[in-house]
Amino acid sequence: MSTAINGSATRRATAALAALETVDRPEIWITLRSAEDLLAEAASIDAAVAAGADLQLAGLLLAVKNNVDVAGIPTTAACPDFAYTPDNDAEAVARLRAAGALVLGGTNLDQFATGLVGTRSPYGAVRDSRRPEYISGGSSSGSAVAVALGLVDIAIGTDTAGSGRVPAGLQGIVGIKATLNVVSTAGVVPACRSWDAVTIFARNLSTAELAMGVMAGNSRSWPTDIRLAAPSKPRVAYPATLPALPDTWAAEFNRHVDRLQSLEVEVEAIEFDAFLEAARLLYDGGLVAERHAGVGGFLEEYDAGTAAQAGIDPTVERIIRAAGTVPAHRYVNDTDKLEALKQKAMAQLEGFDALLIPTAPFHPTLAEVAADPVGVNSLMGTYTNFCNLFDLCAVAVPAGEVDGAQFGLTVVGRTFDDAVAADIARRLEVTPAAPALFAPGAAAEVDRAGAQPPSSAPWPLAAGATAVPLVVVGAHRKGQPLAPQLEELGAFWDGPVRTAARYRMVALDTVPPKPGVYRSEDGAELVGEKWLLSPAALGIFLASLPEPMLLGSVRLADGSTAVGFACDAVAAAAGEDITAWGDWLADRSVEPKPRTVWRDLGEAALAGFSRGERG
Amino acid sequence: MSTAINGSATRRATAALAALETVDRPEIWITLRSAEDLLAEAASIDAAVAAGADLQLAGLLLAVKNNVDVAGIPTTAACPDFAYTPDNDAEAVARLRAAGALVLGGTNLDQFATGLVGTRSPYGAVRDSRRPEYISGGSSSGSAVAVALGLVDIAIGTDTAGSGRVPAGLQGIVGIKATLNVVSTAGVVPACRSWDAVTIFARNLSTAELAMGVMAGNSRSWPTDIRLAAPSKPRVAYPATLPALPDTWAAEFNRHVDRLQSLEVEVEAIEFDAFLEAARLLYDGGLVAERHAGVGGFLEEYDAGTAAQAGIDPTVERIIRAAGTVPAHRYVNDTDKLEALKQKAMAQLEGFDALLIPTAPFHPTLAEVAADPVGVNSLMGTYTNFCNLFDLCAVAVPAGEVDGAQFGLTVVGRTFDDAVAADIARRLEVTPAAPALFAPGAAAEVDRAGAQPPSSAPWPLAAGATAVPLVVVGAHRKGQPLAPQLEELGAFWDGPVRTAARYRMVALDTVPPKPGVYRSEDGAELVGEKWLLSPAALGIFLASLPEPMLLGSVRLADGSTAVGFACDAVAAAAGEDITAWGDWLADRSVEPKPRTVWRDLGEAALAGFSRGERG
Repeated sequence: MSTAINGSATRRATAALAALETVDRPEIWITLRSAEDLLAEAASIDAAVAAGADLQLAGLLLAVKNNVDVAGIPTTAACPDFAYTPDNDAEAVARLRAAGALVLGGTNLDQFATGLVGTRSPYGAVRDSRRPEYISGGSSSGSAVAVALGLVDIAIGTDTAGSGRVPAGLQGIVGIKATLNVVSTAGVVPACRSWDAVTIFARNLSTAELAMGVMAGNSRSWPTDIRLAAPSKPRVAYPATLPALPDTWAAEFNRHVDRLQSLEVEVEAIEFDAFLEAARLLYDGGLVAERHAGVGGFLEEYDAGTAAQAGIDPTVERIIRAAGTVPAHRYVNDTDKLEALKQKAMAQLEGFDALLIPTAPFHPTLAEVAADPVGVNSLMGTYTNFCNLFDLCAVAVPAGEVDGAQFGLTVVGRTFDDAVAADIARRLEVTPAAPALFAPGAAAEVDRAGAQPPSSAPWPLAAGATAVPLVVVGAHRKGQPLAPQLEELGAFWDGPVRTAARYRMVALDTVPPKPGVYRSEDGAELVGEKWLLSPAALGIFLASLPEPMLLGSVRLADGSTAVGFACDAVAAAAGEDITAWGDWLADRSVEPKPRTVWRDLGEAALAGFSRGERG
Repeated sequence: MSTAINGSATRRATAALAALETVDRPEIWITLRSAEDLLAEAASIDAAVAAGADLQLAGLLLAVKNNVDVAGIPTTAACPDFAYTPDNDAEAVARLRAAGALVLGGTNLDQFATGLVGTRSPYGAVRDSRRPEYISGGSSSGSAVAVALGLVDIAIGTDTAGSGRVPAGLQGIVGIKATLNVVSTAGVVPACRSWDAVTIFARNLSTAELAMGVMAGNSRSWPTDIRLAAPSKPRVAYPATLPALPDTWAAEFNRHVDRLQSLEVEVEAIEFDAFLEAARLLYDGGLVAERHAGVGGFLEEYDAGTAAQAGIDPTVERIIRAAGTVPAHRYVNDTDKLEALKQKAMAQLEGFDALLIPTAPFHPTLAEVAADPVGVNSLMGTYTNFCNLFDLCAVAVPAGEVDGAQFGLTVVGRTFDDAVAADIARRLEVTPAAPALFAPGAAAEVDRAGAQPPSSAPWPLAAGATAVPLVVVGAHRKGQPLAPQLEELGAFWDGPVRTAARYRMVALDTVPPKPGVYRSEDGAELVGEKWLLSPAALGIFLASLPEPMLLGSVRLADGSTAVGFACDAVAAAAGEDITAWGDWLADRSVEPKPRTVWRDLGEAALAGFSRGERG
């Protein structure tokens, strides 16, 4: 049963259709599905839910950037002549639809996903959701504005140099750009195939994460030492200098750095040059050849005269044609330079859990972009370009306003640190004061969905990463002295649990004090907490576990099993029985229950040893 | 103290100098160190050993392919005009020297490591060690022949398309081509920087592995789920068809497949087309552009007239110049094709631990290569080209003779399955009937060193991979019913151990029968065995461990600790005490010792429970 979304898909689709009429933004869409189509699919989702289907995203409205295949909708990549009509959904789309998401249409973009502005399209420049004289940001322009306006709940974008983040920043919404190839790019028109990512937009992080867990699948294997959360006191780097930001924006960024510090996060400025240099390599170097590998063959069929007629954007055309003249050895040498820059940048991040940056450096008007289409576009990517080139992951979240514009922050994590980045971004996310401007019904429902996500587990777990549950009852509980051992291994705190009534607990004479647990036919329920750890983290934790602690299968009150602690026989016999407490953190003034037979016998055994009685 | 090598470095250097005089093979070397230099360094190694230095490779004679920097020796890459004299050793060389290896000189190669034949060098074609009218194989020609002749004990090669394996196969020696970038390529003239590997040659596998453990360092991080051994009954794939092999060679290969089967290895033929197609992409496609990225800039300074004078090999020149004309988008598209072929090939290997192939398809004469330098060269790479392109690892071992030629087998493993490939190759290695032809003193010493390696642990552990020791006493011992659980996780069997005298053992009523161990102040030494597991393997093993088994720190008789088994309190109390056996696999007719106080009390406790006495 879907617990995420209240309200039927049909009611939500109907509301969306009404909102589309109200909103005068034809440039958002390249293809809108017919009301008939939409309502028919909504009805079938409602029927499936009524029949008991477990659809995590049932009735969530979805917009798809039009360089990503949706069966039956022409894939144009914002170039009419390029269009083909796919028989099948792209894998990312198929996964969301299989979970009950309802596609509203294909959205406008900077042609061939070449741009960060949202103006490079024969289908019209996409305008900012609140101030129509400003740009939307791009290239996932229509997707971002559709979410910002509340026309849809989630939208698919793509991101090579920032196309899934810059528009999120400018539109005051969330954008998740996962580690490369965690989301399949099958069925997506390539921009630069080495650095393309399929992204998700939503109005809040929890909805975006819910969708990522569905969309990401298992395209690139998660490592067995994946971190599933940031430590409770993470260390976050930020750039020592903030190029391209006006003073007011820089001040706003620094205010958020201070805010992060006040949230028990340790922040520190780092040298940012290697990150910025990678961006220059993307624009001025040989790497752009990948754009020609993607769609250059198509452009070769046109000349200066026919290209304009075919709706080919002149700026995009110039960029891609130039990319066709790069010799391969220059490309190879530039990827070598990139690798060297990556090593330098990663050295800067050594010891940090994540990097905090502004998402976009400022919010230009349509006129400003028209006056300098390439220059402004380059500046827009200052804080996004390096990310995919270095195979980092990023979460862009809204963080209030500055100078009348929406201000966005991005948390960047290392390869596969997607859950860590999301965990830190969660602390920074600023929920907008007002709901989305249109389709308030749909928006309100989704905001409820966001507030009560069906699972609190990090999305990489839903997307195929492996974790092992570890139940702790004492010093490893959240906030207790040994919890940092688990946090440093990337463990995710999954909440309180109770064991089955088959364990006894003693107070061990250790530093720090710990309870010791052992299975007993005379046992009780014990209060504990569950962490989720990667297999490697669990192995490392076990390898460093000191005597007398042991790990093995423990049964929980709900009948499930997990890995849990035990103590060895000598320690069990030596410790004072505190089973009666039920909870290591309980009020310890409670009178303990009488000792059990086993306990008494254990102590007798010890006494026997101390008297020198050996078998 | 070095235990690997008997005899002083000075004695071995002196023997090598004498052997160099005896052997009339000037083409092996591009630069030989002076006797004075060599003996001075040998003396300093001997002095260090005498002073107690722990030099794993003390006095092992080393040849270095002359595209790899050795401080003070000109790096020519077999092109006199290209030469520069480095101030520092390449990282691979530095690591071997720091462990006491003694560099004899820089060896000849196919120019710029472009070739698999050993004839493309102005320093002369390198001839086969036994039949001088035949080729050595290349491009690491001089290094391979120096090892084969016994002039040195180990030699550094490089390998992009097979240069560290083809000459090993033709010369009847061992060549290890590790997973890419496990050995640093710093200080190496690039051939194709995406697929270059630094390799090692030796006359036996254990010496090669010893050197790899030193040379590999920690350049590319080993995964936390690394497999450290093949299962005791591995599954090995081999090509269903054997292109380029004469019938006699194909029959010889099939004889070895049968031999492997007789060694409890499950063998199965697979479709090999995707592997072969990758090779064609390397020779006929855009990937060759990487060769121009490496040394194309140097060649551009010459024209048709001056190139020959400068000692530029005409075949090599043609290949590299052509590589300069490849457009970048073609290179990008070909790497896409390569990725698709890799996925297809990896699907073929699904369920197998490794792939067995012939190393070289046949052994041509110098005249045959001169008649068709490009054609024969391409055929030589039939079974090696795909390996680096797919980021696989390979171990080439000698396997006897065929038609008067040496016959070589290669075991190919997945990325980071280096220890698995070596483990399977070990079963196939055929020790030559006769020792190396020259320098019998040095050779004999090394063969001894090979027979008694200082450590049996897989070389990735020495090179930085992490493993956790797990001590088992019962059903997980080698050959026992549950050992396959550990083998499937890639555990390496590290031999027998004894626990400290502080554990008791009971017979558990489980299927299969298992001992249960618990710490006791009245304990005894127990016989066990140690496995080494990756952290992820240990975590996975723990996650699936059933009640009443537990894992925690166990102390061994030698004072060290490891992870070991325990059983929980209920099981300990219920099982029959068999501590007196000392060894779960011991002769069980031995009369058990009297029960201990603790045990008796435990049983009394259980009896109490069964009578319904609850605390």
